[in-house]
Amino acid sequence: MTYKSDIEIAQECTMEPIVKIAEKAGIDEKYLEQYGRYKAKIDYNLLKESDAPDGKLVLVTAINPTPAGEGKTTTTVGLADALQRIGKHVVVALREPSLGPVFGVKGGAAGGGYAQVVPMEDINLHFTGDFHAIGAANNLLAAMIDNHIFQGNELNIDPRKITWRRCVDMNDRQLRNVIDGLGGRTNGTPREDGYDITVASEIMAVLCLANDITDLKARLARLVIGYTYGKPSEQQPVTAGDLHAEGAMCALLKDALKPNLVQTLEHVPAVVHGGPFANIAHGCNSVTATRMAMKLGDYCITEAGFGADLGAEKFLDIKCRMAGLKPNAVVIVATVRALKYNGGVAKADLNNENLEALEKGLPNLLKHVSNIRNVYHLPCVVAVNAFPTDTKAELDLVESKCRELGVNVALSEVWAKGSEGGVKLAEEVVRLCDEDNSGFSFSYGLEGSIEDKLNQIVQKVYGGKCAVLTANAKKQAAQLEALGYGSCPICVAKTQYSLTDDEKKLGAPTDFEVTVRNLKISAGAGFIVALTGDIMTMPGLPKRPAAERIDVDENGKISGLF
Amino acid sequence: MTYKSDIEIAQECTMEPIVKIAEKAGIDEKYLEQYGRYKAKIDYNLLKESDAPDGKLVLVTAINPTPAGEGKTTTTVGLADALQRIGKHVVVALREPSLGPVFGVKGGAAGGGYAQVVPMEDINLHFTGDFHAIGAANNLLAAMIDNHIFQGNELNIDPRKITWRRCVDMNDRQLRNVIDGLGGRTNGTPREDGYDITVASEIMAVLCLANDITDLKARLARLVIGYTYGKPSEQQPVTAGDLHAEGAMCALLKDALKPNLVQTLEHVPAVVHGGPFANIAHGCNSVTATRMAMKLGDYCITEAGFGADLGAEKFLDIKCRMAGLKPNAVVIVATVRALKYNGGVAKADLNNENLEALEKGLPNLLKHVSNIRNVYHLPCVVAVNAFPTDTKAELDLVESKCRELGVNVALSEVWAKGSEGGVKLAEEVVRLCDEDNSGFSFSYGLEGSIEDKLNQIVQKVYGGKCAVLTANAKKQAAQLEALGYGSCPICVAKTQYSLTDDEKKLGAPTDFEVTVRNLKISAGAGFIVALTGDIMTMPGLPKRPAAERIDVDENGKISGLF
Repeated sequence: MTYKSDIEIAQECTMEPIVKIAEKAGIDEKYLEQYGRYKAKIDYNLLKESDAPDGKLVLVTAINPTPAGEGKTTTTVGLADALQRIGKHVVVALREPSLGPVFGVKGGAAGGGYAQVVPMEDINLHFTGDFHAIGAANNLLAAMIDNHIFQGNELNIDPRKITWRRCVDMNDRQLRNVIDGLGGRTNGTPREDGYDITVASEIMAVLCLANDITDLKARLARLVIGYTYGKPSEQQPVTAGDLHAEGAMCALLKDALKPNLVQTLEHVPAVVHGGPFANIAHGCNSVTATRMAMKLGDYCITEAGFGADLGAEKFLDIKCRMAGLKPNAVVIVATVRALKYNGGVAKADLNNENLEALEKGLPNLLKHVSNIRNVYHLPCVVAVNAFPTDTKAELDLVESKCRELGVNVALSEVWAKGSEGGVKLAEEVVRLCDEDNSGFSFSYGLEGSIEDKLNQIVQKVYGGKCAVLTANAKKQAAQLEALGYGSCPICVAKTQYSLTDDEKKLGAPTDFEVTVRNLKISAGAGFIVALTGDIMTMPGLPKRPAAERIDVDENGKISGLF
Repeated sequence: MTYKSDIEIAQECTMEPIVKIAEKAGIDEKYLEQYGRYKAKIDYNLLKESDAPDGKLVLVTAINPTPAGEGKTTTTVGLADALQRIGKHVVVALREPSLGPVFGVKGGAAGGGYAQVVPMEDINLHFTGDFHAIGAANNLLAAMIDNHIFQGNELNIDPRKITWRRCVDMNDRQLRNVIDGLGGRTNGTPREDGYDITVASEIMAVLCLANDITDLKARLARLVIGYTYGKPSEQQPVTAGDLHAEGAMCALLKDALKPNLVQTLEHVPAVVHGGPFANIAHGCNSVTATRMAMKLGDYCITEAGFGADLGAEKFLDIKCRMAGLKPNAVVIVATVRALKYNGGVAKADLNNENLEALEKGLPNLLKHVSNIRNVYHLPCVVAVNAFPTDTKAELDLVESKCRELGVNVALSEVWAKGSEGGVKLAEEVVRLCDEDNSGFSFSYGLEGSIEDKLNQIVQKVYGGKCAVLTANAKKQAAQLEALGYGSCPICVAKTQYSLTDDEKKLGAPTDFEVTVRNLKISAGAGFIVALTGDIMTMPGLPKRPAAERIDVDENGKISGLF
């Protein structure tokens, strides 16, 4: 059996004009800025000026994934479509895709099958320019740092201790490590430098956590770009504010701060905005987008990156804490494939029925369910995202095992069937949203030491014994606490494939340690990044990049996106 | 006396909604894509589908400038406003500003005083994202080149002979010369590399010369990115087409190819699109924008970069030749300051009256007038762009000297007075547009050798003796001719301050040689770049960058742009 590609399905959709979608979402014309016929930005003043009550907030997260991903965005979009189908007023909030993966392996990132946001080509390419604005602000700061040093270095910045990297929205391994400033006195100061992909820029995290322009500018001013000359005990952090860069950076970001409005294939309003990395950052769409979707809909369906140990943990412990959000329910996406993967099946064999491995993988799912219920005290449901290769026996087994253990579960067939395939899930979500969420709490408080907080995350969320800080990380923790950053929440950067820091330990391991090798302050975002290993912040292109297949015809119609 | 800043004047303007401006320009709604309330893109299909006759084409150029510039954009905008004032149906076509200068010394580039295009903040910042799209396409190709080498280098590209550089839309001298691909086997291939500012990317020139998507894609496929291993005689050019990059690059550029619509302070429709460097490229707005403005207005007023020896020469010999355009009249902007500068007055003393120096600088102006009349055979008028520091005696002297010599001349006070200050110029332009332009010809034909063509430019346009090719340039000329690029037009990169290749030789020198040091093919753009010295393709920031003064308030209102 062959299936239509995502772009074919998307291009068959007759979109509603964006003004109609805005009308449906109750957005007054004065808050709408059109970007072409099918995209718009929404003025954030709507949030301040509207007195509509906030809708229910539903987070979609997942079990530890296979390398192919488990269809969180697809499920999020399909669930929203299904809620509309059963008569609910719903708005979906999603992350924006990055250009890098579009031209690399993955292709597009705007849902899949019959659960997508459109216009998918625009959303996957430049969209409304937010990521370009972030890149420009990031690289303006970088240029101002090197220019400051070139012009006399009044701030005494040590070029060997600059932590601010340049960025580009492209998978380009050639730029991971560079030496710049070559060519003699008039061409800068030679130093080691490097590039991250734009979504890994701290400015992405800052934009996604900022409440408004004033907060955005204050966060930008706090960005730590490096340290002064001197012994470790004498080093002082240098900030973007010290360089007087925050005003111009904020000017570059003023429109990017406004959430974008598009639609699902079934014309549900979709607020698509921001997309920070889920390892070195918190991995979910902007606070502004979530708030906007809650203000506009009775239900706001949103997602978080990677598995629940990273995505949901950060959504709840970082984003909800900073923004004062209280979710009503959590959906945990599981797939038969990911369960088998967690049960030890190799990637190449995931298409074959294997009930034994499937059952063996279940503890991974159950650990995430338990976390949501017993650590965060939120109602939750498992959404089994059906793949064409799943057998009936496999799907039945997951469902019956969940029921046996008292876990809410619903099959989701939105990829193949659109809203019709998500009705049961939608009904379950509506039911859960009426349950009590007043017990919602974080997995750790902010008052403890950095090590304390890391231990709580490892013990409560990952199910391990403790966090072990290397000598280097201990020194960094002491320095960060001395500089006054000790009360920030923690953003753990670790593999998404395991609850541990070892991507090969699948299922639900216990009694393990998590080694923290590096601690770094993201002072603008307001969290401490704990790195458990080498985290790739600049991907590379594969042997045959998707870019080689992408094309556009004489009428501007794009092909080759997935 | 103090004057309002450009941004203050711009922010006082009550703009018309862009749909009104489109209506005024006769653009059917189906061709309009709004970008917010005051910006739009125009579908290029309008050009194919409209049967309206083309309007008159008027080029605004200048004498050799002072480092501060002579107000070409201001005059262009003011002339358009003045034509509207005297009842003409006019559309202005301009270049888009680059972010680099906005944050560097110069500030904004959307006209000045009471002759500006608005919304000036948006136009000066991201506008509709065209430059970001160009940067992304440029850097996608760069990533694909290095990835190709990393993945086995089937095409046998010599990493030491890659001519394709990365780009960023920022003044960042630190990136002029870099070594990238460091960090071991998995992180690319160490090689010398470097960055240009986005406007210097060949993709900018390509976008500005492309007729439509099909032509754009063909040009992109022809881009030469470097050469294969081997002795000079064995080296083969490698193109973007060889890397299968043109489809994805074109997909990134499909919206950037559409011209942007904004308005002047007096609500004249303005098509603002593209902005290639005027040294290593041809320095004028896109062919699509010029064509669109001609299709929409009875008069299209457009501009070219630097002085007429570079800007007008390339507009006429490259752009008009490639696009089949035939200008009706040329306006040469002169200022009292630039005339005194050409008469030998130091930059610091330009504000003081100096009639003697003024008269001594006149030959520079007269040489450009003679070129337009006697080389290109086009009607022309001198526009004296009044500055607040000019004295009446100075302005009178320029005017009377021009009249004495039979040169059409009109005072332009559009900076201070808007359209009212440009009425005389507008009337003169209307008169010239009714003159005969059938004698229009280029300064050189395409059939000669590269050296022949260079000689003709030097002799006819610059007034020199001949072009002298260094041994290196001779070798390159032979190689380019052997590769089949011999019949391309020539794009000379030289100082804008002099008719010669020495920025200190002011006025109208004769009997000089121009030394060509390097010849380079821009195969996508379709011209050969002749470099007469080191041309800076990546500016740096000054001691106190404009970025330090730019700010945005809590309502998104920007300050500190000029």
